[in-house]
Amino acid sequence: MLNLSDIKAAKTRIDPYINQTPILTSSLLNTWLGHDVFFKCENFQKIGAFKARGGLNTVAWLIENGQKPKHIVANSSGNHAQAVAYAGQQFGIKTTIFMPEYSSKVKIQATESYGAEVVLSKTRDLTDGLVKEAAKESGTYWIPPFNHEQVICGQGTAAYEALSELPGIDAVFAPCGGGGLLSGTLIASHGLSHKTKVIGVEPLNANDAAESLRKGSIQRLSGIPDTLADGAMTMAVGDITFEYLKQLDDFYEIGEERMVYWTQWLTHLLKCRLEPTCAMPMQAVAEWLKKQTGKKRVLVIISGGNVDQQTTLKVWSTDWLGQIPAIR
Amino acid sequence: MLNLSDIKAAKTRIDPYINQTPILTSSLLNTWLGHDVFFKCENFQKIGAFKARGGLNTVAWLIENGQKPKHIVANSSGNHAQAVAYAGQQFGIKTTIFMPEYSSKVKIQATESYGAEVVLSKTRDLTDGLVKEAAKESGTYWIPPFNHEQVICGQGTAAYEALSELPGIDAVFAPCGGGGLLSGTLIASHGLSHKTKVIGVEPLNANDAAESLRKGSIQRLSGIPDTLADGAMTMAVGDITFEYLKQLDDFYEIGEERMVYWTQWLTHLLKCRLEPTCAMPMQAVAEWLKKQTGKKRVLVIISGGNVDQQTTLKVWSTDWLGQIPAIR
Repeated sequence: MLNLSDIKAAKTRIDPYINQTPILTSSLLNTWLGHDVFFKCENFQKIGAFKARGGLNTVAWLIENGQKPKHIVANSSGNHAQAVAYAGQQFGIKTTIFMPEYSSKVKIQATESYGAEVVLSKTRDLTDGLVKEAAKESGTYWIPPFNHEQVICGQGTAAYEALSELPGIDAVFAPCGGGGLLSGTLIASHGLSHKTKVIGVEPLNANDAAESLRKGSIQRLSGIPDTLADGAMTMAVGDITFEYLKQLDDFYEIGEERMVYWTQWLTHLLKCRLEPTCAMPMQAVAEWLKKQTGKKRVLVIISGGNVDQQTTLKVWSTDWLGQIPAIR
Repeated sequence: MLNLSDIKAAKTRIDPYINQTPILTSSLLNTWLGHDVFFKCENFQKIGAFKARGGLNTVAWLIENGQKPKHIVANSSGNHAQAVAYAGQQFGIKTTIFMPEYSSKVKIQATESYGAEVVLSKTRDLTDGLVKEAAKESGTYWIPPFNHEQVICGQGTAAYEALSELPGIDAVFAPCGGGGLLSGTLIASHGLSHKTKVIGVEPLNANDAAESLRKGSIQRLSGIPDTLADGAMTMAVGDITFEYLKQLDDFYEIGEERMVYWTQWLTHLLKCRLEPTCAMPMQAVAEWLKKQTGKKRVLVIISGGNVDQQTTLKVWSTDWLGQIPAIR
C-alpha cells in the first residue's frame, strides 16, 4: 500500500508545475454553523481542477524512472482530458486525447489550447476502443483517470498541502467519482494524523461506491446516472482505489436538491465558480456536525470549477439563497 | 484635490480590517489575447465588494479626527449597505441601514448578520427621506455611497495595492457607478505613475457619466436604466467625483450582450463569482488593445461578486462559452 512518503514524493515532483491553491473560509458561514470550515480550492488549480496533479505526477514519475514516453494518450470527456493535455505540454510530450463528441465545447477547446490533439468519436465506447488501440504503439503511455498509484499520489497532494498548513483538522471531506482523489486524500490525511477522520461523499443517484462498500465488492451502476455531479458519475471505482475506500471513516450519499443548495451557497459565500460535485461534501459536513459535540475544524476539498452553461442554468433554476445555512 | 498621500493614509487606516485581495490571471486568456491582463479581485474583499474599503476608511478617519459617531446610517439596496454595516461592526458603532423592500434578500440578510439594524421601506424615495431624518440626530453620521472624499480614498486603495505589486502597468480599467471607485483609482494610479492610463467603463444603457463628460456638466439618467450592471445604475455622478472623472484618459460605453459575454468568460477562466458590472471593463480592454501597438500589461478592477439568482439566470440564458475571446 502507498503511504505518506509517496505523497510527499509526488508533491516534490509536481510543485514546479502546479498552483499552491488557496484555502478559503467564510466568516458568515462559520458564524451561522458555529464551527470552522476550511475550503481547499482546487478550482483555482491549473486546468481548473485537482486532476492536474495526478496527470503531472504520473508523467513526472515516468520520466524520473527513465521511462519518458514519446506519446501520451487518454480518453475523457472531462477534466482528465485537460489534465493530461496540460501535463503533455509541460513536459514536451506529444499528446492525444480521445473525447466523445458530446463533451462540452469549452473542455474540447481548452484541451486543444494545451497543445493536445483531440480525436472526437460518437460514443464513449468508441473512444475506449481508440485509446486502447493507440496505447499498443511502442513508446505510448495511457494515463488512466483514477485507477493508478501515481495518479492517486498526485491527487493526494491537495489534502497534504492543506493539512500541512492547517493544524488540528478533525475531519476531511472529499467527493468520490472513481476514488482517486479520495484515496490520495486518505493516504495523506491518515499519514499525517490518525486522529483526522476522512469522509467520502457521493451522489445518491450515482452511489456505486457506497453500494460497493456495503457489499464488500465493487458494484457497477446499471446505467448513466441522473445527477448534476458530473465529476462523480463514474460507473465503478477501481480495484486499486477500492482498497483505500474501505479504510474511510464514514461515507455519505447526497440528494440532488441539497447538492444544488450548497452549490449556490458556496458560490455565493466563497465567490467561487465550483462544480456541483464539490458542493456535495458540504451537505455531508452539515450532517456530520449535527452528531458532534464541541466546536470542530473541518476541511473540504473543492475539487474543480469547470461548469458549462447548461449545468449553470440547472443549478440556479430555483433560488436557495433565501434559506440561510444552519446546523439544525 | 486629493493625492497619493491621502490614498496611502487610507490604506494604513483600513489595513487591519480588510483583505489584501488576490490578483488573478488566466494563462489561456493571455495566450488568446497576446497581452497580459491582471485582475484585482475585490469580489474576495470583506462583504464581497470593494465598497468595504470606503466605508471603513470613512469611519476610521472620523475616529482619527476625534469625531467618533455614536450612530452611523446609510441608505442603499446594495453593497454599500453591507459595507457600512461591516464598518459599524468593526468599530463597535450602532448602525442603521435604510433599504428598499425590493433589495435582494441575500443582501438584507448579510447586512443584518454584520449586526446592523435594517429598516425596510416600499420605495427608494422613502429610504432617502428616512436617512435624512435620522442623520439630523446629534452624534449620527450619514455615510454616502460615493460623493465623499474619504469614501473615494478608501476605494482607491484597491488600485494602489495592485499597482504596488505589479510594475509597468500600461492601463487600469474600472467600472463607473457614482464614480467613487474610479476617482480613487485615478488618484492612486496617476499618483504612482503618470504613464499609467486610467480608463472608465459604463453600461451604454446607463451612460450618464459618459454624457456628463461629453457635455461638461453632470447629467442625470431620465429613468431607471435597463442594464444587468446593477453596480453602475446610479442616476448621476457626484460633484466631487465628477472633478476626478474629467481627468480620465478614456471612457467606454458597453452594450449588454458583451457584458454578458465577458461575465461568462471571466467566471469560467478565473473561477470567480463576479457581478456583470465588473465584466464590462474587459470589453473595454479588448477594444482598447485593438488600437495598441506592442504587448501591453493591463489591470482590471473586479469590483464585486454579490449576484442574486435572477441575475445569474439572465447572465447564463445564452451560451457564450463556445466563442473564444480574441482581439480582432
